[in-house]
Amino acid sequence: MSKVLVVYSGGLDSTVLLKKILDEHDEVVAINFNYKSKHNASERKAAEKICKKLNVVLTEVDLPFINDLFKSDLLKSGGDIPEGHYEAENMKSTVVPFRNGIMLSIAVGYAESIDANTVCLANHLGDRAIYPDCSIEFIEAMADAAFLGTYKKIKLLAPFTKIRKEEVVKLGLEINAPMEMSWSCYKGGKVHCGVCATCEERKTSFYLNGIKDPTDYLDPERHFDS
Amino acid sequence: MSKVLVVYSGGLDSTVLLKKILDEHDEVVAINFNYKSKHNASERKAAEKICKKLNVVLTEVDLPFINDLFKSDLLKSGGDIPEGHYEAENMKSTVVPFRNGIMLSIAVGYAESIDANTVCLANHLGDRAIYPDCSIEFIEAMADAAFLGTYKKIKLLAPFTKIRKEEVVKLGLEINAPMEMSWSCYKGGKVHCGVCATCEERKTSFYLNGIKDPTDYLDPERHFDS
Repeated sequence: MSKVLVVYSGGLDSTVLLKKILDEHDEVVAINFNYKSKHNASERKAAEKICKKLNVVLTEVDLPFINDLFKSDLLKSGGDIPEGHYEAENMKSTVVPFRNGIMLSIAVGYAESIDANTVCLANHLGDRAIYPDCSIEFIEAMADAAFLGTYKKIKLLAPFTKIRKEEVVKLGLEINAPMEMSWSCYKGGKVHCGVCATCEERKTSFYLNGIKDPTDYLDPERHFDS
Repeated sequence: MSKVLVVYSGGLDSTVLLKKILDEHDEVVAINFNYKSKHNASERKAAEKICKKLNVVLTEVDLPFINDLFKSDLLKSGGDIPEGHYEAENMKSTVVPFRNGIMLSIAVGYAESIDANTVCLANHLGDRAIYPDCSIEFIEAMADAAFLGTYKKIKLLAPFTKIRKEEVVKLGLEINAPMEMSWSCYKGGKVHCGVCATCEERKTSFYLNGIKDPTDYLDPERHFDS
């Protein structure tokens, strides 16, 4: 029997992933990281609510040293979150260096400790434009490292690596993932800002699926295509 | 010009590595991790002293979640440290799952943040018997992940992967690495116990080089070959 550990931010993509993995496997647990990005607290709150709803045990790990030592505008220690398109050049300032490498490595070590044999990540094709640690080549290398570096020969599963976010949302609709409960906005807070890159990307993905975006935005008049 | 980040425990192998890298590169910095193993505090104290002596800036990172969540007798939360040969089967209980993956990933992200282009690790051939995350195949996969997952295309250097500890000590003697200041003992404390696996391995490595072991042991009468 397989036991699967999902790296779960509480964001849209990993919420669809968590629901998909729950539908396909008997034993599923989740791990959430707080590296003190501006939106980690909002994400974690969403992650806790959704895991409660889906009856998934969530392990929470704090990585404050990332905020203390790393350089990124996504972090509390960084500059303002830029506005614009998710794949635009100026979004590079929001990259947290090697974040997926770090989260995956910790998840792999934890998986070995709790007798899980698979670790899942919800990176998708659109992430690749800006985040080098979302590419298929990176994921393959990390999969090799996880397999070779553990006794249990831990497998890495990243089923959205080759599909775009609108396809993730399409799948989410099909499998009834609680996407409306998820958190995306890079700015954190109580309501999605609606104008940062990830809010725009979220809006676009619902729009391309021809359905009403269930998200509450700070300024509902300001649309992605305005 | 190259800037190199050394993963530095304060142990014997990484002390030789740090001296070697210092001799070969212009700009060298070090990073030390405390994951609450029984000997991390003793290691860190040695790391601080040696970095001060060698004039190397040391960044210290605490990873308490490893002790809280992971399963290993090396950790404070684990059982007693077994005695015996470093490469013996019963030593597997001291493996901290995917520790090198985690330390390397954090080092890679930090390197990208401080504009370093290379990360170094002091794993050696003898580690491989017990630690899957010390094998050449694992190191190669992590090197690919670091290169592919960063903007700077961070390089991973692990020059002792194919040599045994006694050869590391031989090099340390040649380049005048302050090995006598380093810490090995898995049990922690003020003085090396002399009977745990890594103390035995330390003793053997000096013995095979035909020189007097400079280490203070709790029981100097109990030798590796007694």
